[in-house]
Amino acid sequence: MSSPSQRLGAEFIGTAFLLAAVVGSGIMGDTLAAGNVAVALLANTIATGAILVVLITMLGPVSGAHFNPAVTLAFFLRGEIGAGEAVRFVLAQIAGGIVGVWAAHLMFADDLIQFSTTARTGGAQWFSEWVACFGLVFTILATLKVRPAAVPMGVGLYITSAYWFTASTSFANPAVTIARGLSDTFAGIRPADVPLFILMQLIGAACAVYVARWLCAGRVETTS
Amino acid sequence: MSSPSQRLGAEFIGTAFLLAAVVGSGIMGDTLAAGNVAVALLANTIATGAILVVLITMLGPVSGAHFNPAVTLAFFLRGEIGAGEAVRFVLAQIAGGIVGVWAAHLMFADDLIQFSTTARTGGAQWFSEWVACFGLVFTILATLKVRPAAVPMGVGLYITSAYWFTASTSFANPAVTIARGLSDTFAGIRPADVPLFILMQLIGAACAVYVARWLCAGRVETTS
Amino acid sequence: MSSPSQRLGAEFIGTAFLLAAVVGSGIMGDTLAAGNVAVALLANTIATGAILVVLITMLGPVSGAHFNPAVTLAFFLRGEIGAGEAVRFVLAQIAGGIVGVWAAHLMFADDLIQFSTTARTGGAQWFSEWVACFGLVFTILATLKVRPAAVPMGVGLYITSAYWFTASTSFANPAVTIARGLSDTFAGIRPADVPLFILMQLIGAACAVYVARWLCAGRVETTS
Amino acid sequence: MSSPSQRLGAEFIGTAFLLAAVVGSGIMGDTLAAGNVAVALLANTIATGAILVVLITMLGPVSGAHFNPAVTLAFFLRGEIGAGEAVRFVLAQIAGGIVGVWAAHLMFADDLIQFSTTARTGGAQWFSEWVACFGLVFTILATLKVRPAAVPMGVGLYITSAYWFTASTSFANPAVTIARGLSDTFAGIRPADVPLFILMQLIGAACAVYVARWLCAGRVETTS
Repeated sequence: MSSPSQRLGAEFIGTAFLLAAVVGSGIMGDTLAAGNVAVALLANTIATGAILVVLITMLGPVSGAHFNPAVTLAFFLRGEIGAGEAVRFVLAQIAGGIVGVWAAHLMFADDLIQFSTTARTGGAQWFSEWVACFGLVFTILATLKVRPAAVPMGVGLYITSAYWFTASTSFANPAVTIARGLSDTFAGIRPADVPLFILMQLIGAACAVYVARWLCAGRVETTS
Repeated sequence: MSSPSQRLGAEFIGTAFLLAAVVGSGIMGDTLAAGNVAVALLANTIATGAILVVLITMLGPVSGAHFNPAVTLAFFLRGEIGAGEAVRFVLAQIAGGIVGVWAAHLMFADDLIQFSTTARTGGAQWFSEWVACFGLVFTILATLKVRPAAVPMGVGLYITSAYWFTASTSFANPAVTIARGLSDTFAGIRPADVPLFILMQLIGAACAVYVARWLCAGRVETTS
Repeated sequence: MSSPSQRLGAEFIGTAFLLAAVVGSGIMGDTLAAGNVAVALLANTIATGAILVVLITMLGPVSGAHFNPAVTLAFFLRGEIGAGEAVRFVLAQIAGGIVGVWAAHLMFADDLIQFSTTARTGGAQWFSEWVACFGLVFTILATLKVRPAAVPMGVGLYITSAYWFTASTSFANPAVTIARGLSDTFAGIRPADVPLFILMQLIGAACAVYVARWLCAGRVETTS
Repeated sequence: MSSPSQRLGAEFIGTAFLLAAVVGSGIMGDTLAAGNVAVALLANTIATGAILVVLITMLGPVSGAHFNPAVTLAFFLRGEIGAGEAVRFVLAQIAGGIVGVWAAHLMFADDLIQFSTTARTGGAQWFSEWVACFGLVFTILATLKVRPAAVPMGVGLYITSAYWFTASTSFANPAVTIARGLSDTFAGIRPADVPLFILMQLIGAACAVYVARWLCAGRVETTS
């Protein structure tokens, strides 16, 4: 059993690496692809999906590897994490995400402090974030019930797919959304557009909790 | 053991996410790749293969995760699903597929109701669909017998490959074919061309049942 | 335990699907990439690596899933297959490979009978084939000893890598080489260049048997 | 239990194949992509990530599959390898790496002896290498503790991601850095820039040992 500080440490370092990967690979892909946005997003996708599998595999046994306030909300709604620890998890995730973005800026010799100017707004984007986060939390809850060892691969592959099948490229994570507001690069989002993204993500996560509760009721774990 | 309504729910939601991924990533890839069709298909391939692994892993224990009338036909021919439930499965798959396509249209701010104008016809296309669906059902049956836990990865990787090695990009699924008839985007198929695609898919699935019965007879499961 | 005819059937159908994937995805990638050879080879790589994992997972328990005379030679040198069955395996692999190439031609509405005009010759190509087949057989033998369930993924990922790190794009398989001689498409090889490719592959396989024998001696299987 | 010479043999051959893959796929990607650097790096990434999974899976049970002096340093700091064997491991890794680069040159009909002229220097590059190697060693140690069978996939996916999210494309390995100094191709690094890369890698590895010691203390292995 990990201690509370180990758990917060895992949420912090995991979210930091996640954001370093998302923002760093966005910068690298954008630079090398020289205007070929599809190739840049492909690189961004592969880097993000791969690091998610790695981070969740190794830190899942420490903290559950949420790295995502929407996931923490889902476990809170299910009564699997208390309100106090949930709040501390969210703070650690946001802090880790910001540090990860700054690390990416340092690695690419970019200005440390930035604010994105990329507009991501409108009904199609908001609906995309609802779908993206509904699918992510549903994937986690349904997979966790039947094959927990498959959760890291499930999350990595879900995000790999959702980067392409949602119009918003699937942020699906409030801590990621806040942190990407602080980077005026490929993966950025205008700070003014952050709140509605987060709102749709939290609603999507809550919906997933209730759909998963109905759809997966009565099954037992089939394998580790 | 899942209830009948949970099983239908799983077929509905699984096929919906599958089609949202197929059609959504087709739109995204096509838009970003700006005429580079190979890169667009690569994105479409990765998104489709990845979501299949996710969906089959988590919903397999609920409904078997067919998401495909040709697969349901195969299990019916093997006597593993009754006629009544098979029909209900197919209806849930078709309904889910249509909802998934519409969700993709909403996410990309596209017209909800569309009909494809992409011609996909002729002997080479039909033979491709026969091969694609024969291989898919053979993969499922043969893998299920020797290593059931590998079926999700097997289906995801088979479709990843078949998107490229068949001239039709491997629809291999009547519910997917019907739903893609309702999207005038990258992944679409002219409604008039749908029936022959479905016919070849069903014949391919039936052939696979008999080949797998012969080739895999007498073996036992070797591992979970 | 599978019967001799089931084992030959598995070698035939597996090699047929392998070649359909190699040649079909080569045609598709080459057509769609419109001159961008790197993207065409990327598609070819993904399709080939993916189908190898699928085929070896499901047919391994039937025949061992060689699909490759060089692999059959390796198991013959290790005394794990008799001379008679080895010869029948090789014939089934060659026949399957040719049928797979022809199926690819039919799927893409191409002439059934073709002979490649792509020159693949010279010391660098031959050394590449020695390396490619040495590495492939070494991967199979070393992985089989310590983690047999990982062989399908090991072979798929090895070939994924070797398509790019060898100058010959890693044929590494005499049945594949013969069959690709019969396709004047992306994946082809001029029939006159086939014999030396095969010779280098067989020498590479034999070397791998002896290196693996030394390097892996004394270890026991650690996991299924 | 493997003998000392088998262990050194595994480190030698594993690092040789790793470098052949890194440098060979760099040459192939660079040649075929015709100036599209993002596509070349994508090919380089896939080839490297894939071969790492293969090599660590099969040679892990022989030598631990370090293939990396920074990893050997980490295990030395943890008291899991003696000073004498650690030094011999590092020598085998460096020798193997050089042979692998030369094999790549031979396969692509390039000059055997080369020295890179690609400058890789400056604070952003050095910080990138610190991050890259910190993350790699942390991944290995944390994954090894909770799910040892996942280490090969973890390392392969971590490097897949880090090739894109670090500005240096994540060498993260002193033997790799030395060997890449000897190739004036896509993956090269000017020999004068090698020492500082190695210094940052070793510091990153040492930091990871201490962070992992704190974060993972008290947990037990949860699964093989």
